[in-house]
Amino acid sequence: MTQRIYLDWNATTPLRPEARAAMIAAMDLGGNPSSVHAEGRAARALVERARAQVAVAVGCKPAEVVFTSCATEAAAVLRGFASVRVDATAHDCLWSQAREGGGQAVLGWGYANNETGVITEAPAHEGAVMLDIVQAVGKVPFSFAWSGAEMAIVSAHKFGGPKGVGALIVRDGFEVPALLTGGGQEMGRRAGTENIIGIAGMGAAAEAAQRDLEAGVWDRVGEFRNILETALSSGTNNTISVGKGGPRLPNTLCLIAPGWKGETQVMAMDLAGFAVSAGSACSSGKVRASRVLKAMGFDEGLAAQAIRISLGPETTKDEVERFADVWLAQYRKALARAA
Amino acid sequence: MTQRIYLDWNATTPLRPEARAAMIAAMDLGGNPSSVHAEGRAARALVERARAQVAVAVGCKPAEVVFTSCATEAAAVLRGFASVRVDATAHDCLWSQAREGGGQAVLGWGYANNETGVITEAPAHEGAVMLDIVQAVGKVPFSFAWSGAEMAIVSAHKFGGPKGVGALIVRDGFEVPALLTGGGQEMGRRAGTENIIGIAGMGAAAEAAQRDLEAGVWDRVGEFRNILETALSSGTNNTISVGKGGPRLPNTLCLIAPGWKGETQVMAMDLAGFAVSAGSACSSGKVRASRVLKAMGFDEGLAAQAIRISLGPETTKDEVERFADVWLAQYRKALARAA
Repeated sequence: MTQRIYLDWNATTPLRPEARAAMIAAMDLGGNPSSVHAEGRAARALVERARAQVAVAVGCKPAEVVFTSCATEAAAVLRGFASVRVDATAHDCLWSQAREGGGQAVLGWGYANNETGVITEAPAHEGAVMLDIVQAVGKVPFSFAWSGAEMAIVSAHKFGGPKGVGALIVRDGFEVPALLTGGGQEMGRRAGTENIIGIAGMGAAAEAAQRDLEAGVWDRVGEFRNILETALSSGTNNTISVGKGGPRLPNTLCLIAPGWKGETQVMAMDLAGFAVSAGSACSSGKVRASRVLKAMGFDEGLAAQAIRISLGPETTKDEVERFADVWLAQYRKALARAA
Repeated sequence: MTQRIYLDWNATTPLRPEARAAMIAAMDLGGNPSSVHAEGRAARALVERARAQVAVAVGCKPAEVVFTSCATEAAAVLRGFASVRVDATAHDCLWSQAREGGGQAVLGWGYANNETGVITEAPAHEGAVMLDIVQAVGKVPFSFAWSGAEMAIVSAHKFGGPKGVGALIVRDGFEVPALLTGGGQEMGRRAGTENIIGIAGMGAAAEAAQRDLEAGVWDRVGEFRNILETALSSGTNNTISVGKGGPRLPNTLCLIAPGWKGETQVMAMDLAGFAVSAGSACSSGKVRASRVLKAMGFDEGLAAQAIRISLGPETTKDEVERFADVWLAQYRKALARAA
């Protein structure tokens, strides 16, 4: 069996060694952080350490971090607001919260798009703003404190942490309804016994991701993405690199290949040993044209012929070159079959 | 430093070795279970294996298991019902969902109480029933299929799995509103990327807990609890063993010690090297009389003078005897100070 090449880092990332080590260490901490005895206090200390690590990576105060089970859960705090406006390219977890109601709407805004990597600042808005910074954290410099937003959502597994843990960031003094009710965890903002092992992993991953970012790791990732982009577009006549030229995540390439369905591309490349995706992983394998691309003005046909290739710090130049060779050969075959 | 003795298994349990091994193995699975490529399918297979393991332990069909981040999140499905009646001794995560509304109420029922260990079958009820079986799973035989309930809530860290993962059990054909919206995970019943590592741990723990239960491990735990109960009540004149004589979890002893505040007991025993609790851990260290004991008819004073001692499969006879000696000596001192 040949080694597979993983180019789907926006769907999820491999667990960072730092996160793995922190999680294994946390497995030995038996206590419940809500318990007052020594075992409980040790578990509490671990949660608070991770909270400080996440705060540094997000650019907020530790007390502004509310641990959740994922970004989707964090976005669900919007249920508590009567009126929610959402930008048309936002992730489904925000999109599903859009509703018309009385009063000034909360604006849900995708800061860095998961399918295209396009970075868009939220427009001036009278009411509160929630930023989806899931894809931005650890990949590009970002400061919640400077963003002006009242809320943000974060997911650990997009920057080398485990799946099943995320955070809602809430500006100091901004009131949000409790995500879950019952116990008094997370200062009453999110009931439920804390995911100690996952939170330890998220904290360690946040710290490592921040260190990588400061060390310029993503500049190299960006170079490889550009090499890939150039290879794919110069090898064909008619592909479209979505968002090229504007502010974009350094690792993401959303490519429209006219005449070749995105789903077919994903399957063909999977068989050839490469993991990429057509749109968001969260759409659960449904074959459909990308809502995001349609919102950007692409027609139904083009929006269904896109793939997302997303690189990570472990991606090598050799990997992207091999991908380009195989993809170009497959695309020519697909076009020949269709002709 | 002397070895501490952990007698707070109802708050949370140490991670079982089987769960630890399954979690470490899952750390190497990089994929997102919603992705269609090979990495995604491997993650999906892991989730489905764990689902089958949990189903066996709960006595339900795999398709009836919806993974959540905790039992509190599972209980939150009750938000989608207009009218919810909750028994007075239920955990806060159910209690906080009680509301009056139109139509036939859903009944939220604590099957095995976390503070007292008392097991109570749900009464006949016209509408749907949700059972809190968090403390029962793995400790006493239980079958969701035979229970007649429409829903149940489960938490992994009460039977040797990790914190931060649980399940909502929903009877086949019974419609519930989605817990979280966005992606199509968990058959549309719970959006959000799955907690792969936690779910793997929950599955392995469920399988191990079921095996322990069938092997009679909890009969021995029950003997030790009874030894403890006899030692504590025969060493004093006026303690009350809550729920003694009726159906009760084999590992739980809720003891009222008149004249000695529960919180003070917990602190004194913590300093002496023992972890126990006053009421539910989830009440987050707040000093207050137990709502559960008051609902059982104890007055405010007695309800504030209880501790919960909860044993596990690793608890030894020596540990409970040492606890009894120290506790009795401390109680005598407390009474002498008060006299």
